[in-house]
Amino acid sequence: MTDEMDALLPDTGSAEDPDVGVISPTVGILGSGDFSRSLAIRLVTSGVSVAVGSRCPKRITPGLFPDAVELTSQERAVTLAEKVVFVAMYPEHYSTLSGLRAGLQGKVLVDVSNATELNLSGPSNAERLAEAFPECSVVKGFNTLSAWALQTGAQDGRRQVLLCSDSLEAKNGVSSLALRIGFHPLDMGGLIAARELEVAPLRLFPSWGSSVLLLFLLFLFFYGYGFVRGILMPYLAHGRNLFYRLPLDLVNETLPAVALVSLALVYLPGLLAAVLQLSRGTKYRRFPRWLDRWMCGRKQLGLLSFLCATLHGVYSLCLPLRRATQYRILNGAYRQVKAGVEDVWDEVEVWRSDLYLSCGVLGLGVLSILAITSLPTVGNTLNWREFTFVQSGLGYAALTFSVLHTLFFGWDFTFSSEAFPYYLPPSYLLAVTLPCVVLVCRLVLVFPCLANRLSRIRRGWESRRRCPVMAASGTTPEV
Amino acid sequence: MTDEMDALLPDTGSAEDPDVGVISPTVGILGSGDFSRSLAIRLVTSGVSVAVGSRCPKRITPGLFPDAVELTSQERAVTLAEKVVFVAMYPEHYSTLSGLRAGLQGKVLVDVSNATELNLSGPSNAERLAEAFPECSVVKGFNTLSAWALQTGAQDGRRQVLLCSDSLEAKNGVSSLALRIGFHPLDMGGLIAARELEVAPLRLFPSWGSSVLLLFLLFLFFYGYGFVRGILMPYLAHGRNLFYRLPLDLVNETLPAVALVSLALVYLPGLLAAVLQLSRGTKYRRFPRWLDRWMCGRKQLGLLSFLCATLHGVYSLCLPLRRATQYRILNGAYRQVKAGVEDVWDEVEVWRSDLYLSCGVLGLGVLSILAITSLPTVGNTLNWREFTFVQSGLGYAALTFSVLHTLFFGWDFTFSSEAFPYYLPPSYLLAVTLPCVVLVCRLVLVFPCLANRLSRIRRGWESRRRCPVMAASGTTPEV
Amino acid sequence: MTDEMDALLPDTGSAEDPDVGVISPTVGILGSGDFSRSLAIRLVTSGVSVAVGSRCPKRITPGLFPDAVELTSQERAVTLAEKVVFVAMYPEHYSTLSGLRAGLQGKVLVDVSNATELNLSGPSNAERLAEAFPECSVVKGFNTLSAWALQTGAQDGRRQVLLCSDSLEAKNGVSSLALRIGFHPLDMGGLIAARELEVAPLRLFPSWGSSVLLLFLLFLFFYGYGFVRGILMPYLAHGRNLFYRLPLDLVNETLPAVALVSLALVYLPGLLAAVLQLSRGTKYRRFPRWLDRWMCGRKQLGLLSFLCATLHGVYSLCLPLRRATQYRILNGAYRQVKAGVEDVWDEVEVWRSDLYLSCGVLGLGVLSILAITSLPTVGNTLNWREFTFVQSGLGYAALTFSVLHTLFFGWDFTFSSEAFPYYLPPSYLLAVTLPCVVLVCRLVLVFPCLANRLSRIRRGWESRRRCPVMAASGTTPEV
Repeated sequence: MTDEMDALLPDTGSAEDPDVGVISPTVGILGSGDFSRSLAIRLVTSGVSVAVGSRCPKRITPGLFPDAVELTSQERAVTLAEKVVFVAMYPEHYSTLSGLRAGLQGKVLVDVSNATELNLSGPSNAERLAEAFPECSVVKGFNTLSAWALQTGAQDGRRQVLLCSDSLEAKNGVSSLALRIGFHPLDMGGLIAARELEVAPLRLFPSWGSSVLLLFLLFLFFYGYGFVRGILMPYLAHGRNLFYRLPLDLVNETLPAVALVSLALVYLPGLLAAVLQLSRGTKYRRFPRWLDRWMCGRKQLGLLSFLCATLHGVYSLCLPLRRATQYRILNGAYRQVKAGVEDVWDEVEVWRSDLYLSCGVLGLGVLSILAITSLPTVGNTLNWREFTFVQSGLGYAALTFSVLHTLFFGWDFTFSSEAFPYYLPPSYLLAVTLPCVVLVCRLVLVFPCLANRLSRIRRGWESRRRCPVMAASGTTPEV
Repeated sequence: MTDEMDALLPDTGSAEDPDVGVISPTVGILGSGDFSRSLAIRLVTSGVSVAVGSRCPKRITPGLFPDAVELTSQERAVTLAEKVVFVAMYPEHYSTLSGLRAGLQGKVLVDVSNATELNLSGPSNAERLAEAFPECSVVKGFNTLSAWALQTGAQDGRRQVLLCSDSLEAKNGVSSLALRIGFHPLDMGGLIAARELEVAPLRLFPSWGSSVLLLFLLFLFFYGYGFVRGILMPYLAHGRNLFYRLPLDLVNETLPAVALVSLALVYLPGLLAAVLQLSRGTKYRRFPRWLDRWMCGRKQLGLLSFLCATLHGVYSLCLPLRRATQYRILNGAYRQVKAGVEDVWDEVEVWRSDLYLSCGVLGLGVLSILAITSLPTVGNTLNWREFTFVQSGLGYAALTFSVLHTLFFGWDFTFSSEAFPYYLPPSYLLAVTLPCVVLVCRLVLVFPCLANRLSRIRRGWESRRRCPVMAASGTTPEV
Repeated sequence: MTDEMDALLPDTGSAEDPDVGVISPTVGILGSGDFSRSLAIRLVTSGVSVAVGSRCPKRITPGLFPDAVELTSQERAVTLAEKVVFVAMYPEHYSTLSGLRAGLQGKVLVDVSNATELNLSGPSNAERLAEAFPECSVVKGFNTLSAWALQTGAQDGRRQVLLCSDSLEAKNGVSSLALRIGFHPLDMGGLIAARELEVAPLRLFPSWGSSVLLLFLLFLFFYGYGFVRGILMPYLAHGRNLFYRLPLDLVNETLPAVALVSLALVYLPGLLAAVLQLSRGTKYRRFPRWLDRWMCGRKQLGLLSFLCATLHGVYSLCLPLRRATQYRILNGAYRQVKAGVEDVWDEVEVWRSDLYLSCGVLGLGVLSILAITSLPTVGNTLNWREFTFVQSGLGYAALTFSVLHTLFFGWDFTFSSEAFPYYLPPSYLLAVTLPCVVLVCRLVLVFPCLANRLSRIRRGWESRRRCPVMAASGTTPEV
């Protein structure tokens, strides 16, 4: 909400239930920090009475909390709260609540804290709170919401709150409250689930870890290979100083290789899965675990491949800005004048250069469309057929353009002996082998005999040798 | 949900209704594939009991379904289900359910299948199911949701499920279930609507078809025109071999022309609509159908125009990388040395070049901001006034920069006879005429007399000759 | 919804409540424009009966409204409506409703209009309507929804409708209706809040105003400074004509300076806040108001900085396209031939050039990732730790790369006297000072003594001199 809308907070707190005309019970919040403030604002605008208990009520800046909220001492807030009390404090201070034990008896405590370290052994904060207050019911929830999402109401869809508790009645009460303020509660089970709930917000990009590691290793490999082949060996063998190539040239040679290989690795698991299904004759046997994890990591691999491809494009566009390029042009002009050659036009070179540049631009353009449809909202406007068309159809188009870009770049030079100094092939030749294999396999799967059989398997058909029951009853009906 | 949260699925299934304390009836699912699994997970986490019936219950990998789900035979699942049974199978196998007829009597079957081809004649799968099981009520629904959205709960807003059925009571029951699991049901009418519901997910970008076709035709036209004018005629007339221009040069000449014309076509229907409203004196007469369709296609035309403009920008930035450019520089240096000219500085050429480059970059920058606000979520954070400012205000700014870019590029060269070989004008001159017309018309509509009248018409005013009733009663009050 | 789905609108209007089996009361809408149409469609698909009252019912194009809607005269629509009547008209025509006074008695009027000018004095449209119809209850609401969001159901999350009214019962009734059609109502208080509600949709990017102004002033400063130092002084002192540098060169010198300074200004308030908290020993005292506003404007400053950096990148990539660059190369080749120099290779210059280009590309790449995570949906998929890693960790990485880019660009040339013509330092040297200060301060805050103390303060600890009560009770427990 903007500052102006902030000014609209009602100044007469209404306890009327806007939905069914029932007076909603007052909710208590212990604590007066950011989370407490955001939660109080949300409750009040949804028509719930709130009493906030602070250790130092006078110290709170006037105007920070809506006027409808009753700012008072912790003891009084606990007394005013009829059922639910949010414990909006850091867990290291739960012991300070022992003085409120009498007033908290029989109430529902909601623990909104997160863990401080990724450690699933030992009791969670919620379990420790339950142990300290056995006469209360403890519900774990709301800890995955940021204060901002609480206050503005998750306009962008992040509506789900995960709850867990050993007491069903307490969980129901907090669920109703969550629904009242516009969130959708999900039941995660007993309080034992609190351990995972508390640790989840600490995880740093759990689905990206292996993809980033893989790309980093690919980068190290190709950079090292290019360094040995292009800088170290010429230095050791002929004393040529090419170390200026390290910051830009060599990076621009490594990035496309990494992008090519990772883009091929995005489409390879799909082919392996298809081959597995064809050979097994059924889709109902699970894939090996490594293939499952590979399939789940395809989106991250694809986005990282797009990042490398874009950086390669930008580095390549920077090449004319380099002093090295300018020196080469000037030296070339000098030599041409000295040799008295009026026209250095090489038609084949011109065609090769234009073709590989054009293919590169088109490949990057198609990859951009793929990346844009990976954005959550854009992806959600597509139905399954459109999504498959883009991710699979345009994806293979991008792979094809990239392979053509590399092959045009190599041209016939790749097959000359100059391309293999010290018997080492150029990086791009190493990088383009896997994409070529992927494209060829995909073409093989287009043959009607294989494509039709795969389509039937994916719609539930099973070869008779798979399931004896089905051999008796006929084709498989399940989707 | 991540793998870790997957592990949180409750292992004691609770049939307690978290909302109102009522025990929710068990739901049955026939089938054990992906959709069945995702639906089961969703139902269980929302507190609904689930019984999944599979032809081969033992064959299902352990751990695939949550422990709270009862995995059993199809007959038993149908018996356990109290009211609603999801038929999560491919339609070609509905006949295999005939053995379950007794158990299914009086229950509500939910058909979640999609059609296999875009054919609206003949009965839908839902209608065939209803015919085969006349003693059941059939509800069509949930077929537009992907398994992923079902499982994770549509965090990004795709919450709507479309339902249709001939039985109101059955529809209500499935609606309540949809609400329970966090989706919003929409009533689409009787079962006859199932034909369109089943075909909708098959449509491939229905709103983009005509825009893509139009741009493709524009591309063909300008590419062919440039080919004839720039490559074929010089070859036929003077034997000059300019075919190397095909992959990159000619494409880079065609793309900006296509981008310019399509950007003008984005703003032209708004002007035509304004002219229509001004001449008719009212906003309450509908526009001609072709104008309506044109207005609906503006967003797609604009995004495609932005794509062409960006590709043109990237191709232009690639020009210094071409061998052709390098050869030209070397040949030019050679000629300069031979001619003994020390300084080739042409001030006018320098200004022209810098001006058109600068205008081009600014035009592309403004178009980028337009494209970013077309993303669903960014567009949703803008109110109507901000959206109009961006799409209309910045849009005309982009069109102006693009026209200036083209005019600076043409400069006075455009009016020399060299620009008209074989009496054919350059592509950019053809392309820039429509945008200029659009800009001039827009300027005319800024005149206060026209602008004020149009504003009044859009706020509901009608000229007296329009509506005799209004002539009697005064001005029009409707919005 | 697509056109095809539009065709699915039920043709038998059902008044059955899909949720609880209660017949929902008919809703009336006065007016037959876009808003009226979209609202009618939404109500009908959610199972509510609708009667639309138009001044000229025969004039409405057939097929515009769903068949289930009763299109009739205003008087009859008011009679058919049981409780709620939407006044979908422009406010200047409210007086024409006086003839309906009898039929409207005791009903709830919903005012959906917006203001025409940003003026908070004087009564709002809703208050004027309430004054004109004292026997009705007036509720202000639904005015922030676009017709499109109403019709399609806010698939992307914009679900909230803000309501305000002096009558609680009327507000409850409209709230239930909003919930029925899939929106989430928020109570904004009494009808006095209508003034702000009506003006809110008129505000044009209220949070961006100061950031855009600041960047504009920075641009003016650096452009003027560069003009004086690089064009005017050489002209006045030596008569050199460098005015051709105005459209591109000078802009490309200004943009990076503006980007650098604004990126530093994004991270500076965080450092000031940390210093304040460290010196005060507590996090519970509010920051000065200017610091609060600065902290709120950081996202906009960051996005504008990214825009300037990207434009600088594109302008720099355009440099080889300029005629000026080509002339320089040709003249350089001429001079080299005349001087008989065979090889102009300067190793230091080559390294400098490659290093600053590489740092620039990496800095821009990291800023792109930052910009992408600023998109609402992408930001929402990140938890707090991931968001902080990106915005803070990657942010400081981007700042570091940008500073390195500038320092490599300056190299040792910066310390020569040539860099200070007329005793004026180059723009980039002025621009890079603030980022260097920010980076140094951030490094200082990494020292364990300061970092640990700051972390404890942020988890609620307070130095004893802060709060006498806490001095008595121990550490502070509030979050």
